[in-house]
Amino acid sequence: MQLRYSPAVNSLHLLSPKGFAASGVRAGIKSSGKPDVGLLVCDQLATAAAVFTANRVVAAPVVVGREHIGNGKLRGVVVNAGNANACTGKRGMKDARAMCNLTARAIGCGEKEILPSSTGIIGHLLPMEKVTAGITAAAAALGSSSEHALAFMDAILTTDLKRKNAEVAVKIGRERIVIAGVCKGSGMIGPRLQPSHATMLAYLTTDVIAPAPLLRKMWTACDGSFNAVTVDDHASTNDTACLLASGASGAKLDSAAAKQKFADALAEVCQSLAYQIAADGEGATKVVKVVVSGATTVAAAKAIARTIANSPLVKCAMHGNDPNWGRIVSAAGYSSVRFDPDKSVLRLQGTTVFRRGRPVPFDATALSKALAADRVLVDLDCGAGTASATVYTCDLSSEYVHINADYHT
Amino acid sequence: MQLRYSPAVNSLHLLSPKGFAASGVRAGIKSSGKPDVGLLVCDQLATAAAVFTANRVVAAPVVVGREHIGNGKLRGVVVNAGNANACTGKRGMKDARAMCNLTARAIGCGEKEILPSSTGIIGHLLPMEKVTAGITAAAAALGSSSEHALAFMDAILTTDLKRKNAEVAVKIGRERIVIAGVCKGSGMIGPRLQPSHATMLAYLTTDVIAPAPLLRKMWTACDGSFNAVTVDDHASTNDTACLLASGASGAKLDSAAAKQKFADALAEVCQSLAYQIAADGEGATKVVKVVVSGATTVAAAKAIARTIANSPLVKCAMHGNDPNWGRIVSAAGYSSVRFDPDKSVLRLQGTTVFRRGRPVPFDATALSKALAADRVLVDLDCGAGTASATVYTCDLSSEYVHINADYHT
Repeated sequence: MQLRYSPAVNSLHLLSPKGFAASGVRAGIKSSGKPDVGLLVCDQLATAAAVFTANRVVAAPVVVGREHIGNGKLRGVVVNAGNANACTGKRGMKDARAMCNLTARAIGCGEKEILPSSTGIIGHLLPMEKVTAGITAAAAALGSSSEHALAFMDAILTTDLKRKNAEVAVKIGRERIVIAGVCKGSGMIGPRLQPSHATMLAYLTTDVIAPAPLLRKMWTACDGSFNAVTVDDHASTNDTACLLASGASGAKLDSAAAKQKFADALAEVCQSLAYQIAADGEGATKVVKVVVSGATTVAAAKAIARTIANSPLVKCAMHGNDPNWGRIVSAAGYSSVRFDPDKSVLRLQGTTVFRRGRPVPFDATALSKALAADRVLVDLDCGAGTASATVYTCDLSSEYVHINADYHT
Repeated sequence: MQLRYSPAVNSLHLLSPKGFAASGVRAGIKSSGKPDVGLLVCDQLATAAAVFTANRVVAAPVVVGREHIGNGKLRGVVVNAGNANACTGKRGMKDARAMCNLTARAIGCGEKEILPSSTGIIGHLLPMEKVTAGITAAAAALGSSSEHALAFMDAILTTDLKRKNAEVAVKIGRERIVIAGVCKGSGMIGPRLQPSHATMLAYLTTDVIAPAPLLRKMWTACDGSFNAVTVDDHASTNDTACLLASGASGAKLDSAAAKQKFADALAEVCQSLAYQIAADGEGATKVVKVVVSGATTVAAAKAIARTIANSPLVKCAMHGNDPNWGRIVSAAGYSSVRFDPDKSVLRLQGTTVFRRGRPVPFDATALSKALAADRVLVDLDCGAGTASATVYTCDLSSEYVHINADYHT
C-alpha cells in the first residue's frame, strides 16, 4: 500500500480510478480571480455515499445534496468556491438546484444525479450568471488527465495554501483497484460529519464495484480521519464528503476480506487527507497529534483529545515550542468526561513531563527544541481503561488572527 | 446604587466594608519582581462562602480551600501569584497547608480559618522560602487604607494589564453597608465555578451580618457574572471566588427585601468584575457582549451564547471590525442545543443582518465603523421561546498569540 501525500503529477491521482473525468475553471466568483468552479463526473451512473455537516445551520447545497444522495447513485459533483450559499433562504435553495440542473443538462443526466457543494462566505447570494457560465465552461473542459485532476483540486480551494490529495491502489481478487481523494479545508475546521465539520469538502473516487449501502457503511472511515481533525473547532454549514464508485475496474467486494481491505485503504486515504487539512490549517506551522489512551471508552478518549486539541492556550504553547504541559493537563480536566490526574501520564515528543499527579523533571531546553518540529506528539495516558483516540490539530499563530481579522469580507 | 469601575483611589474600595485589612508584597515568586503575595484579613471571624473551579484537575490550594470553607467561617485569605501550585502532588498539598499555617500564626487564628489561593504556572513546586518570607512581610504590612487595597490587588495579578475592582454601597434598614470586590484574570479564562473557570481569583468583602448558608446561596450571583465570562474557554485548575462578611456594620439581612437588595448589589459587583476580566482579556481590544434571547431554556440560551463567544472565527471577525455574521449564525448551529435559523434574527450593534434564514441588506462600511468600538453587542433572537442569557468575551488578537506563544515559561 502506497500513500501519496504529494500533489505533484504522478501515476496516481483523483482520476486514476477508471471511469472519471474532471475540470476546474475561473468563473469570477472569487475576487482573487482564481479557479472557482469544478466538476467531477463519472462516465456511468456511479454508486455513491456522502456524509454532511452536523451543524443545525446547513447550506442550501447540503440540503439538496442530502436529497440527491438518497438513491445512492450519482453521475457527478458540481462545486463552487468563493461563496457558501449558506443562510440564503429560498433563493439559495433555488440556486443550488439550478447548479445541479445546469450540470445535468451539460453532461446529459438527471438533475438528481448531481451532488452540489459550495464553500466561501456565508450569507451572500450566489452570482448565478457567473456560476452558470462557469458550469458551462467546466463541462466543456472535462478530461481525465492528471492536469484535469489538478484543475478540479484548485477550483475547490479557499484559504488553503496547498492542494490536498491522497491515493492508494490495492488488489481486490486479481484486479488492481484505486481509491483516490481530494479535499479542501483550512479554517472553520471542526468537522463532525454525519452519519458521524471548516468548510471541509472531500471527494473520493474509486473504480471498485460496490453497492451504495456498502459505501455508506464505509463512511465510518470519517471517525478516525475527517472527524478527528480540528483547526478551530468551528463546524461549517457546508461540510461534505462524497465517495463515488464507478465500478469500471470490474473488481467486486464480494468477500469479508475484500471489504476489509477496501475499508482499510479508504481509511488510509481519508487519514492522509485529514492530516493534510491540519497541516494546511489557517496560520499553521505544525501538526499536533493528540493521542489519548487508557480511557474508559473511545468517546471519553475523543472528548479529552478534542478538548486538548481545541485549547487556544495549548495551541499557542505548541506554536511557541513551549513545554508548558500544565495547559494540557488542565484542558483534559475541563473536558466533559471524567479524568483523574493522579492516574495519568503525559508525554510530549516522547518525553514524560507529568506522571500520576506530579511533575517529572525534564530538560526544558531540549524539549523545546524537540517541539520545534513539523509534527508534535502529545500523548496522554489516562490510566483508567483501554480505550484510545487520536485527534489532529495545528498550532495557533498570529497568522490565523491575521487571516480571519485583517482580510475583510 | 453606584458602581465604581475605576481602580483609582476613591471613597469606596475593597477595604471600605468595616472590619477588613489587606496587604501585598514582593516575595520574588514572579520573575518580573512585581508584588506576588497578598493577604486579606478580617478583624473578627467572618462568615464566608466560596466557589471553586469545576475542572477535574484542581490545584492544591483549591483542595485545601474547599476543606477550610466547610465551616462557613474565615479570618482571611492568603494568595500568591507567579505559581499555581497545581499538578504538584503531595508536596503541593503540604505547601498549601503551610501557607495557611504561616498566615494563621502571623495573624493569630486557626489554620482552618485561612483560605489559600495560588495563580501562575502549573506544574512547578512553590518556592517555599520566598513564600514564607512573603507571608511574614505581608502580615507585617497589613492595613485598611485604599493603598493597602491597591497593594493586595497588585499582588494577585498575573498577565492582567489592569487592576479590577467594583464596589457598591446600599442601605439595609437604617445602616449603610458596602459590598466590595477585587479580582484577577486575563488568560485561561472560562470559569465554571461550582456550586455552579482562567485562573480567575475574586475576593469580595462586606460588612453586613449574614450567616454562611445565606452567603452560599448568594453565590448564584456567579451564574450571571463570573460564569458568564470567557476569554479562551480554558477552565483553570485554580479558579476561586470568596465572599467574606465581617458583620461590622451591624446591619442584618433579616427580611426578604433586605436579602434581595443585598443579592442585587452583590450581583452588580460581580458583573462589574466579570466585565473587567473580559475587557482585560489577554490581547483584548474590546468587550463583546453576546445576548441570546428567544431560547426555550436558559441553559439552551447559555450554550448558544457560549459557543458564539468561544468561536475563534467570531472573535477574529470582531477584532477586525468585520460584519461577517455567517460565522455567528454557524457557531449557533454547532452548539449542543437545538437552533433553528429560520426562526432567528441576528443584530450587530443594533443593525439587523440576518432574519429568519435570510440575509438582510446593510451598509457594511457603516456597520464596520460601528464595530470599531470598545463594546460590541451581538444580539441573537432564536424565536423559539422566552429564555435568554448573556456571555461576555473579548476579541482575539495577534497579541493573545504573542502572550501565550512567545513568552516562554
